[in-house]
Formats: sequence, C-alpha cells, structure tokens
Amino acid sequence: MQNYDLIVVGGSAAGITAALTARKFYPDKSILLIRDVKNVPIPCGIPYVFGTVKAPMKNLMPVDTMMQNAKVDIQITTVTKINPEFKIIFTSDNHKEGMTYERLIIATGSLPIIPNLKGIEKHNIFAIKKNPEFHQLMLEELDKAKNLVIIGGGFIGAEFAEECRKRHPELPISIVEMQEHCLQLVYDPEYCTMAEKGLADQNITLLTNEKVVAFTGNESVAGVELESGKVIPADMVILGIGCSANVDLAREAGLRIGPARGIYVDDHMQTSNLYIYACGDCADKVSFFDGKPSALKLASIATMEARIAGANIFKTNRKNIGVVGCFATVLNNQAYACAGLTETQATKLGYKIAVGSAESVNRHPGMMPGSALMKVKLVFELKSQILLGGQIIGALSAGELINGVSAMIGKKMTADDIATFQAGTHPALTASPVAYQLVNAAENALLKIRALI
Amino acid sequence: MQNYDLIVVGGSAAGITAALTARKFYPDKSILLIRDVKNVPIPCGIPYVFGTVKAPMKNLMPVDTMMQNAKVDIQITTVTKINPEFKIIFTSDNHKEGMTYERLIIATGSLPIIPNLKGIEKHNIFAIKKNPEFHQLMLEELDKAKNLVIIGGGFIGAEFAEECRKRHPELPISIVEMQEHCLQLVYDPEYCTMAEKGLADQNITLLTNEKVVAFTGNESVAGVELESGKVIPADMVILGIGCSANVDLAREAGLRIGPARGIYVDDHMQTSNLYIYACGDCADKVSFFDGKPSALKLASIATMEARIAGANIFKTNRKNIGVVGCFATVLNNQAYACAGLTETQATKLGYKIAVGSAESVNRHPGMMPGSALMKVKLVFELKSQILLGGQIIGALSAGELINGVSAMIGKKMTADDIATFQAGTHPALTASPVAYQLVNAAENALLKIRALI
Repeated sequence: MQNYDLIVVGGSAAGITAALTARKFYPDKSILLIRDVKNVPIPCGIPYVFGTVKAPMKNLMPVDTMMQNAKVDIQITTVTKINPEFKIIFTSDNHKEGMTYERLIIATGSLPIIPNLKGIEKHNIFAIKKNPEFHQLMLEELDKAKNLVIIGGGFIGAEFAEECRKRHPELPISIVEMQEHCLQLVYDPEYCTMAEKGLADQNITLLTNEKVVAFTGNESVAGVELESGKVIPADMVILGIGCSANVDLAREAGLRIGPARGIYVDDHMQTSNLYIYACGDCADKVSFFDGKPSALKLASIATMEARIAGANIFKTNRKNIGVVGCFATVLNNQAYACAGLTETQATKLGYKIAVGSAESVNRHPGMMPGSALMKVKLVFELKSQILLGGQIIGALSAGELINGVSAMIGKKMTADDIATFQAGTHPALTASPVAYQLVNAAENALLKIRALI
Repeated sequence: MQNYDLIVVGGSAAGITAALTARKFYPDKSILLIRDVKNVPIPCGIPYVFGTVKAPMKNLMPVDTMMQNAKVDIQITTVTKINPEFKIIFTSDNHKEGMTYERLIIATGSLPIIPNLKGIEKHNIFAIKKNPEFHQLMLEELDKAKNLVIIGGGFIGAEFAEECRKRHPELPISIVEMQEHCLQLVYDPEYCTMAEKGLADQNITLLTNEKVVAFTGNESVAGVELESGKVIPADMVILGIGCSANVDLAREAGLRIGPARGIYVDDHMQTSNLYIYACGDCADKVSFFDGKPSALKLASIATMEARIAGANIFKTNRKNIGVVGCFATVLNNQAYACAGLTETQATKLGYKIAVGSAESVNRHPGMMPGSALMKVKLVFELKSQILLGGQIIGALSAGELINGVSAMIGKKMTADDIATFQAGTHPALTASPVAYQLVNAAENALLKIRALI
C-alpha cells in the first residue's frame, strides 16, 4: 500500500504552491500531488485564450516540470474519497486499497456558479471550466457565433468581452449585469464609469440593472430573457457570475464547512481534522478587516494560503491575517487595480473614512516615452488614519504598485506613514517625487482628516 | 518692512514640496518661496535633456503655477544673508532692510563636486549645474564634440553616457570610474556587470579602476590623464562624481553643520535654531539602518524631508525615520531599481544576512504582450529575518515595485511577512501568483535562513 508523508489534492495555483512550499520547508518528506486534468490552464489567463493568446494550449502551467524539479510525485486521477480516520485516500484508479498519508492538503478549487434558470441546460451556454480542452470547444463555438451574451459584468465578464472583441471585431457582444455598474464590487462608481466607457468604445453593449430570468431557444440557446421583459438574441452565452468552493470531497469526509461555504480552516489553514489542511478557492475565508466571512476567490489569495498551508503542514510556522483582497486587470489598455476596501465598501461596513486622490502622468517630464496617466485613490479610517484600501487606474505599472498598497494595508500604515515614506522616482519610470501619486493621495486624505476631526 | 510667517529658501524639489506641504498644513499662514534661477529644471531629468527630451526648456518644473495655485508668493533673487537673532533675511534685491520671518526653511540643495585636479579650470569641463541655460550651453558644446569623457560611473554618469549616445550615435564616449564596477555603490556586482554589458552594447567605453589625475590641453581640455598613465583624448568632459550640500548661507548664519557635512537637523528637520528648518540635499542625513551619517542625496529623500519640514514648521507632526535610499534608473532599456542596503553594503556594515533571489517574466503566460524578464533580489538580516534591502532589474514596472520594497523596509517586514503577503497578479501586468518574484525571493531567502540558523 502506497504511503506518502504529504498528499496534495488539486493541481492548480493553490495545490502547486502548497506542494512547492512544503518541499522547501520539508526537504526530506515524500510528497504526492494529485490532479484530475492532464493540462492545467493558468486560471487568470483563461479569458486571454479567446483573444490575445489565441490558443488554449498556450495558456498552461508547467506543473509537471515544476513538480519534477521539486521532487514531488504526480498522479493524474480523481480523488473519490478521503477516510480521515485511517488517513487513506481513494482515487478512481485506486479505489480499493487507496493510499495513506501523514498529512493531507485539500486544494480542490472552485466550480463556476450555474444559476437555476429556465433553459440553463441549453446547448452553447458555457460556464467556464478550468480545462483547456473545454476552452478549445468554446473557441470553436465562438468562431461560429452570431450573437454573444456574457452574463456578469465583473472582471471575468469584462475581460471575456474584450478578448472576444479582439478575435471578432464585428461580433455583437453584450454583457448583462445585475448591479448598477460593471465592476461595482471592486471599484468605486467613478472608476466603474471609466470602465463602462472603455467597453462602449469597443462596441460592447453593457446592460446594467438587468437580471436574467430565462434562456430561450430549442436545443440550442437563441436568446436571453431579462426581468425587464427585454430578450437579447444570443447563440452563445458565457456565464461569468462567480464560483463556489468545491467542498464535496471534504464534506463527505466529515470536515466542517465554514460560514462562507468553504472548507473551514483556522488561521494556520488547518481544517477541523488535525492532519488535513485546505487552501485556495475551496477553503473558507475571513476578511482581514473585520474577521467576517469573505466570498473573495482570487489566485493571489489561493497562493498566499498555499504558502501558509505548505509551511505549516508538519510544524506551525505561519499565520493567515485574512483576506486583504488585491486585484488588477487591464480594460481598454488601462490598468484597473485595487487592494482592500473601496470607499463604498468601507462606508457600508460602518467605517468613518477619509479619502484622498491624486493623479499625474507616470513620467517626468511628461513627454518622456511611455507616459500615461495614473490615478491613485486611498481610503483611510478617519480616527486611526490607517489605510483601508487603494484603487489605481491608468498606467500598466499599477499592477506592481498595487502590491505595495496591499503590503501597506497589511502592515496598517497610516496616511502620515505613506505621506512620508521614501518613494524612489525616475524620469523614465514614474511621476516626479513632487507629483508622486501614492504620496500625494495620502497627503490629500490628511487634509480631509484634519478638516473632519 | 515685509514680513512672512514662513520663508522657504530654494525652489527645487525640496523647496517646492516644503512650501506646498506647509500650505496644506497651515492654510492661513503667509508663505514666500525664494529661488535664484528663473527656470527650475527637473533635477533627475537633466541627463535626458541630452537625448530623449532634446531641449532643456522641455525639462522644467512648473514652479510658478504650483506656487500660485497654493497661494505661495515667489521672489526670484539670491538670499545673501540670514540673521537668526532678528529673524531677518537679506537678498541681492533687498540687502538693506531685509524681510522678517516667523519660520524659515532652508532648501538650498547641493553643488556639484569639482575635484581639485590639475587642469580642472580648462574650457569644456562641465560640472552639472541645475540651470537650463547652462544645459543649453552644454548641448551646443556636445554637438561640436569629437571625444566625450564622463568622469564617474554612477547613475548620473551612466545616464549621461546613454543619452549622449542617443543624440550622437557615432561620438566616441568613455566613462572613467575609480571603483571596480560602474554603479557599485548602488548594486551588487552581478547587476553592475549587466549594466556594464549594456554600456558596451551601446559602444560606450567604460574604464574601471581608473583615477583621473589631470586634464591636458591649452585653454580647452584636450585629454584626460589617468593614474595608470593612460591619456584619453577628450574635447568635452562631464563630471558626474556627486555633489556636496550647499551650506554656505547656513554656516554664515551660525547654524550647526552635521557629520555628513550638511546642515544639522534633528528627526523633525529642525536645525540648531528653533525657528529654522532644513530639508533636501543641503540637510544632514542619517541612515535608517544604523543612525550613522548618510551621504545619499536623492530627490526622493529631499521631498520626503520637505514633507516633514513643511508639516512640522509651526507644530511638530512628523518624524524622519532616516534614509532608506530608494533609487531607480533605466539603462539599455532595462530598469535598475534598488532600495535599502545591497548585499555588499549590508555585509560591510557587519550584518549577518541571508539573500534570496527569484526571476520570472512579468506576464503570464509569457507570450502576453509587453513580457519582460524581472529579477528580484532581497537581503534580510539573518536572525530577525527583517528586510534590509532589495534590488529589481528588468521590466520597467520595477520603478513602482521598488517603492513597495521601500515601504516594506521602512515597516521592518520579515521574510515570512513578504512570503505570505497578498500580491495581486494579472496576465497582462505581472508574473503569475505562483512565480511572483518578490514573494519567491523571500521564500528563497527563508530556505537559506533555515539552513543557516
């Protein structure tokens, strides 16, 4: 009977990172990673397969190479059952004897949410699975489509719309969004409006405040029926309304499920079973800010949790401070990045806040090559002046700067800390030190804080 | 007799930022800014005038507009004397009566170091003054030059060499550097070597381990004589060997001079006189790491100090934690960014350290547009695991990421903090969350730390 010190179930961002981290911390342990697909797509890269990257097989994680280099064994099979009492797992290739483990990490990820709507079973309605063969099928349907409708105007929906537009400049593309704005859960309204303009400029129709009630058609989808009575023609529909934790295996094994519907974990990523840890989209999450359940599911959170789970698996080393939330995307050639709470979210959570914004081109003088406008907005708790969130829009280097903001939130930096931190600048890389957006946004927030307290 | 609540002497990065900050903190105070040049160049932009930007008048700070918007008065004149006893300053336009101040901020900057060498007085040897009319003269001489020699292979020397190369593809250009490597004070040897290769690729001759002993020629320079006996032909010489604090005015006023030869200031930027503050290149500095005198002079430090001086000028608000040091430049289309201590510097200071490096392209998958390699090297104190420094080379977004590293140093983040901080990633903006360089460099340092302690 095969035995491993550690078995990791799941071969996407969380599983890979957990295995690599465990290997770094425990060089002598035997480790097996089990995944159920042969080819693992880069999850955040999936929308780009449909435009920029062109082919699903160009969007793969080099899992096998990484595991071989780290001396981690691999099996491609489906885990069918976990027996925590005897520390055995069973797979579709080994359903009798099973394999024993000393420790187990569950990283089974998430499954796309499929709404219970009339006609949802029709052909050509796609929930986005993490499987390149499936993406190839979608691509073939996309090339035949006459009317594409995307349900959900969050990151994924907006990215899919833009990438499909790149592949098919003339295809009618619509996004249906329940909220007042696209990207509303991630940005404050003024930035959502910018993103909406960007979509319109690319001839993508955005329908907000609209709820899907049914899909029309015979075998194949023919239209999307909205609560308002409108019916949009659609021979292809992509669902981008989020995903839910894949907890079936864990639930059947008797592990506790948390309030955010993921596998319950403590701040060391340990589940309700002493020998089983979980990380990534399948694990329950709490907010860094108030400790309450968080529904966020991001590769950046998954890998952070995996670095904690992998390090702690034989000896507690690391602690999870909770979900800060740090995102970025590119829409219409502008970066949209955010970390922590938006002004809207912070207000809704009951914080008294002060907000500061600053904008400047990211070069000095502004005629230096590559110059692009960058806007920074920071949200601070009024009394403590602690940073709660930041949004950065514009130049693509926002994708790196937002991670500085994320670290600042994690370390509870104040407006004053940020206003006086040492930001390096250079004519060919950033705004001038006088106009540096991050620092000036903090200074401008301080102006408001002084006026308010 | 004119009276101001606050007079700021100096109109470059520090003076401007001090005046703007004082205005934000003290909206009702009368503020005057005095500068001695009509047009204020962007200091870090000066090398770019000779290549990318083309004209000195395109490299100006909009000082007048900024001051007018902030309701700060301006005088263009030279301050000739400060009388701290009666709180009066005299200028070349007002040398009898003078003007009184309640508070004074000295931001007189620095002067280029002119080495006491034989022949230094010859025509066409240029120390870089912060004056666009002077840059215009240099540009005219550059266009006539047959052999350009740059003394000093630090940032300024390397930037000047590259920019002059852009303007004159065929001009013989040499850099003479005393140290073993160019950029040696800022980067570890492996990165200096990369920069040296970049210079060679642009047909720029670098002479290291070479000391200038004299300049030959009659009225005009004709050659640079080196200690090794070599003489390099040169009809134009640019000195890029650093600058010294401009403290004459302060010294004559009886203010104390500090051990780094700047105007002494405490951690609130107050000089030895209760009513006078100083900031920027003219102010003495101490290192964040050991509190010892620091010779660093950077616009980023100057503006940070100015934000402290301006805020504290009527009421203490802010404290200076000392110089972290955060730089960036672009050489041969690669960003070179660093913050804090290099491995070499930390070792020299007596730290026991562990170093971790990681590299990856800054996109995922790597074929996404704009993909460029980015290498991150982090230096940690071994026992505490606290971050001492970081170097980032490659993709231009390093210019923003290094500021995250600077904040992490300032907040004394540990290798573990960085290995588990929440870094957002995106296919079109950064490396994947599995390969994110900053996090993996910290993880790799931890591997070494565990092996060493």
